[in-house]
Amino acid sequence: MMDGVFISDFKNLVKAVQEFEGVTRKSSIDTVTSLLTESYNVSGDVVIDIGDDASAIDIGNNQVVLIAADGIWGQIMNVNPYWAGYCSVLVNVNDIAAMGGKPLAMVNIMSVKHDEIYENLLAGIKDGCLKFGVPMVGGHLHPDGEVDSLGVAIVGIAKKDKLITSFGAEVGDKIIVAIDLDGKPHEMFELNWDTTYDKDKQLVQDQITAVQYLAERDYIKSGKDISNPGILGTLEMLLETSDKGAIVNLEDIPKNENISWENWLKSYPGSGFIFTANEENCEFIKKYLKDYSIEANVVGEVTGECSLYLVNGDGEKLEVFNQKTNPVFKSKKE
Amino acid sequence: MMDGVFISDFKNLVKAVQEFEGVTRKSSIDTVTSLLTESYNVSGDVVIDIGDDASAIDIGNNQVVLIAADGIWGQIMNVNPYWAGYCSVLVNVNDIAAMGGKPLAMVNIMSVKHDEIYENLLAGIKDGCLKFGVPMVGGHLHPDGEVDSLGVAIVGIAKKDKLITSFGAEVGDKIIVAIDLDGKPHEMFELNWDTTYDKDKQLVQDQITAVQYLAERDYIKSGKDISNPGILGTLEMLLETSDKGAIVNLEDIPKNENISWENWLKSYPGSGFIFTANEENCEFIKKYLKDYSIEANVVGEVTGECSLYLVNGDGEKLEVFNQKTNPVFKSKKE
Repeated sequence: MMDGVFISDFKNLVKAVQEFEGVTRKSSIDTVTSLLTESYNVSGDVVIDIGDDASAIDIGNNQVVLIAADGIWGQIMNVNPYWAGYCSVLVNVNDIAAMGGKPLAMVNIMSVKHDEIYENLLAGIKDGCLKFGVPMVGGHLHPDGEVDSLGVAIVGIAKKDKLITSFGAEVGDKIIVAIDLDGKPHEMFELNWDTTYDKDKQLVQDQITAVQYLAERDYIKSGKDISNPGILGTLEMLLETSDKGAIVNLEDIPKNENISWENWLKSYPGSGFIFTANEENCEFIKKYLKDYSIEANVVGEVTGECSLYLVNGDGEKLEVFNQKTNPVFKSKKE
Repeated sequence: MMDGVFISDFKNLVKAVQEFEGVTRKSSIDTVTSLLTESYNVSGDVVIDIGDDASAIDIGNNQVVLIAADGIWGQIMNVNPYWAGYCSVLVNVNDIAAMGGKPLAMVNIMSVKHDEIYENLLAGIKDGCLKFGVPMVGGHLHPDGEVDSLGVAIVGIAKKDKLITSFGAEVGDKIIVAIDLDGKPHEMFELNWDTTYDKDKQLVQDQITAVQYLAERDYIKSGKDISNPGILGTLEMLLETSDKGAIVNLEDIPKNENISWENWLKSYPGSGFIFTANEENCEFIKKYLKDYSIEANVVGEVTGECSLYLVNGDGEKLEVFNQKTNPVFKSKKE
């Protein structure tokens, strides 16, 4: 059993996921959420708001405009501003892709203290735009910044009744983890599972269109792109938004064989998604995504209990997250 | 001549406008513009990009999605975070309004060092959302920020063939300055001409809809919202984007009588726009906006020479900006 995980290792793995910074730092988002919720109802057009990868606003004719924003962690910014710029495009494009949407354009808000960082940052942004085929159309520069920081917002469009959201998971849904396995860890950031930088831009862009295709044909019931909290942290966020739990078989998760399970579960993939779907659609989803270098597999099932359990190859079962005791974020319903 | 400006004062006034920080700090935007221009063509959908208040992306059916981003000056943030939050909404909403668009929703990117700033900031954002009727639907928080900073991006929608842009000014167009005169300088920031905070939210929201109305009926040829560079700095930005010049009669600019000319020309109004229009439409525009507490007046004419001249009540004429020697920003064509 090449990738088998024995019980003592398994306990340590679960602990590592629970204590992972990518998971724990999500909880401070809760404050923003609760304080801004009151502003939602000023307009009747918001159909999806905080809690999903992007928010959706109804513009009529069964169309929604999607909007999302992401900042870049200071540590990446200072160590490798080029990569920070590139990733600012990647994370935003994936937010729109994960909703089944088409990314349209981005704007940025930059603060710049060191000129040399600035030029590398812009070069990375530009290369990200060219790779993903999404233009950076404007922005705001704090020219007298006290720090170097970068925030990017993205806008996209989707069909209102075909949106992939985090709210749609139902008991009995199959859980699919879909990741491009053809990549390598970034040489400076080992948890960045880079699958786009060396890849042909057409294939990178086709990966986004492939998710749109599955969304528009109703293959997917709910979904989210795998981001900082990693594979299980992201799944837990989806489950919290849907008020559901799950049982996941660790060894069914598609994985590049050169990476340890711990690093793999913490990785931010270049193209990676959690989906839930009806059983009869899973084979098609797997087959369809394979043509776009995305390995998809059914890893478990959605349950009515608000816990995420992980099972290893020997049938041993551990609770990773529990929405009462250690949620990744609390959904705004609570 | 109550508000008459004599020649020595007039020279000082022009100098003050030229040296105003709100004007001079715009020029560093040029670098971002030139470095990112290459990314525009990755998608064929961008119809308006950097150089305007917002960028526009074609989504078919004669509709464009508008997107803009603005940061908040550090000095406002530290002195009065509540007002910084409120203004982050105001400036973004005005960016969409100035294009003749309907604001849909905003997202923010925050970095927080001091918790007490944070709560005031969120309270200001919330009140801004309620005042302008535009929801803040998501965002990204840097919880371990080294500084307190706030960036907001906004998305809106407009009819493609009815957009108000900065590109549309033509020789012979009348120049209209339209400002809500019913307000007061903010007690901590004397150049913030606040006309929204104490005003009924319905009227504030109607001011935005009023610009949409004029845009959708083709009354306006080009326009821009008056922002940090003030009345003449903003006009100059519009002229630079259109490759035009202007002659402006100082004393025709609508002005609150309690404010000095210097402060007035440097002020950031709560609701203020520069428009150009055909002569036959000017009376209607003036009359229509008056119903929404916006005083509009024809202040001069667009010329083919790339200079902005200001004329006082005695007919004395001074050059304020010259696109060859002291532009506010260089348009990307140069």
